[in-house]
Amino acid sequence: MDCCVIPLRHGGLSLVQTTDFFYPLVEDPYMMGRIACANVLSDLYAMGITECDNMLMLLSVSQKMNDKDREKVMPLMIRGFRDAAEEGGTSVTGGQTVINPWIIVGGVASVVCQPNEFIMPDGAVPGDVLVLTKPLGTQVAVNAHQWLEQPERWNKIKLVVTKEEVKEAYQEAMFSMATLNRTAAGLMHKFQAHAATDVTGFGLLGHANNLAAQQRNEVAFVIHNLPIIAKMTAISKACGNLFNLVQGTSAETSGGLLVCLPREQAAKFCSEMKSQSSGAGGQGASGGAWIIGIVEKGDRRARIIDKPRIIEVPPRGSQAANQDNSSTSPDQNPNLS
Amino acid sequence: MDCCVIPLRHGGLSLVQTTDFFYPLVEDPYMMGRIACANVLSDLYAMGITECDNMLMLLSVSQKMNDKDREKVMPLMIRGFRDAAEEGGTSVTGGQTVINPWIIVGGVASVVCQPNEFIMPDGAVPGDVLVLTKPLGTQVAVNAHQWLEQPERWNKIKLVVTKEEVKEAYQEAMFSMATLNRTAAGLMHKFQAHAATDVTGFGLLGHANNLAAQQRNEVAFVIHNLPIIAKMTAISKACGNLFNLVQGTSAETSGGLLVCLPREQAAKFCSEMKSQSSGAGGQGASGGAWIIGIVEKGDRRARIIDKPRIIEVPPRGSQAANQDNSSTSPDQNPNLS
Repeated sequence: MDCCVIPLRHGGLSLVQTTDFFYPLVEDPYMMGRIACANVLSDLYAMGITECDNMLMLLSVSQKMNDKDREKVMPLMIRGFRDAAEEGGTSVTGGQTVINPWIIVGGVASVVCQPNEFIMPDGAVPGDVLVLTKPLGTQVAVNAHQWLEQPERWNKIKLVVTKEEVKEAYQEAMFSMATLNRTAAGLMHKFQAHAATDVTGFGLLGHANNLAAQQRNEVAFVIHNLPIIAKMTAISKACGNLFNLVQGTSAETSGGLLVCLPREQAAKFCSEMKSQSSGAGGQGASGGAWIIGIVEKGDRRARIIDKPRIIEVPPRGSQAANQDNSSTSPDQNPNLS
Repeated sequence: MDCCVIPLRHGGLSLVQTTDFFYPLVEDPYMMGRIACANVLSDLYAMGITECDNMLMLLSVSQKMNDKDREKVMPLMIRGFRDAAEEGGTSVTGGQTVINPWIIVGGVASVVCQPNEFIMPDGAVPGDVLVLTKPLGTQVAVNAHQWLEQPERWNKIKLVVTKEEVKEAYQEAMFSMATLNRTAAGLMHKFQAHAATDVTGFGLLGHANNLAAQQRNEVAFVIHNLPIIAKMTAISKACGNLFNLVQGTSAETSGGLLVCLPREQAAKFCSEMKSQSSGAGGQGASGGAWIIGIVEKGDRRARIIDKPRIIEVPPRGSQAANQDNSSTSPDQNPNLS
């Protein structure tokens, strides 16, 4: 499970908590703080929990930074973390900072819940539909962006992508990673989700497999569609599948929720995700939701079909993003009908 | 405060939680795990909380270790952490591990409490007595032990201490740091403690100052006695007060609780600390408790008197430890009567 759920000594309540910390992967310290916070909270959201009682921040300040850089960078990172926590309706009241060769940023999210506040991620049934709430490809975008400064690497991908496209994809990845999965968590209740997880280090397929393995029913997850930040598939292929993006194992940071929904609810879930997210400054792509597969009877594993359909998700604000790119209907792909 | 206390949405309950992580300071990985856990839990114990609903473990594995060392060291450290958690009546069900240049070990402790389960650390009144539940000098002992292998350093202290004494002091410090402050937390309720904190990185005086600063009443803490692991005072003096040990600012790791008790309860608290700790394998020194000072009317600061009495605390198991070395009576020092 994404969180630990501890039954308490008091009145049927449970303590649900999670922790995560990692190293900076975007250059903007403020956005990095937001991403770290979104990433920690995401584990609660994956259980359909929309509230958080408290966050702790875990930081290490790099000993290799000079004082000036440190005083500039760390407060921004902390502010980003706090702002995202506030957006999540919670606050940061505790933590610990140490000195280390590397910067580390992360935190702990804790909430005390009644049983109806969370959805145990084990109720998928054959016939359910799989929905993903953020596009894949954050790792590829972050790496490609670093390669702009590394001619040897850049030469390998410059035939399939422009510098401008890489910069746009990087921005898209950054905003996507910084987006809270809170809206999705709320809609999980409204549309009776049966199970969910968030997509992070093991990639879509890794987390789908973990989720499938813990189902009470004998089910299998079959993934037909891969919504991917535009051009990232081409980059991944151009460097010899370095990332295993279309194989589903490219690592994501603060990825979307993978949600199992009753078939009749999935389109409404996607549609509402899209309409709610456009209000939060996240117009277009990463505020969307895509139907990516189905739940069959099976041996509690997940797989991606041979030649899945790639949904190129354009960066928000781009012309393409102003068209409707979210798959809100299961009828778009014959495999799903 | 040592913890954050978050009022919950449910029935008058509060979420109390704390986090701490740091770098290894003893060579034995199992003991290091125990120390890290004791250090995390200590913040709860300082609030008189004896229960813990859940712990998360935070680890970073050093990239500089080879696989063989890593497979040997990390499981031992984890086991030490888990064993100490079990001794604290709790368990570790969550956490995060990353790769880093340095080993990091720490955790998060959380508990959901009713108001009567914790003691807000702000109720000291003039006439109270200050009690400390572990001897000072852990940092000096750990450093002196490293200096056994550094002739230049060793030459500075070899006139005041033998190698055997340094090894004994190191053992004593290690066991003391690995000892949970849970017994003291329980006795805080029994003997109506008015406030407490645990002694860690800022040293006795630093934490005493912090505690004094948050008192509701206008009080000052005056410290007359310093219980210190045997020979550590001599070492500290021999290296030109490098550690500021008798000045009260030498850092401690997983130090004891500094407790403000009503004057008539202090001796009983100390006596019971001593009798309870001898059962837990911690006979003698670090299972003790020492009356170290008094609470006066004042400006919410702490100070150590000029020429405080140094109580040399012998290593447990040594001949000296079998005599009674705990100051269990306020009458031992005229300043306190």
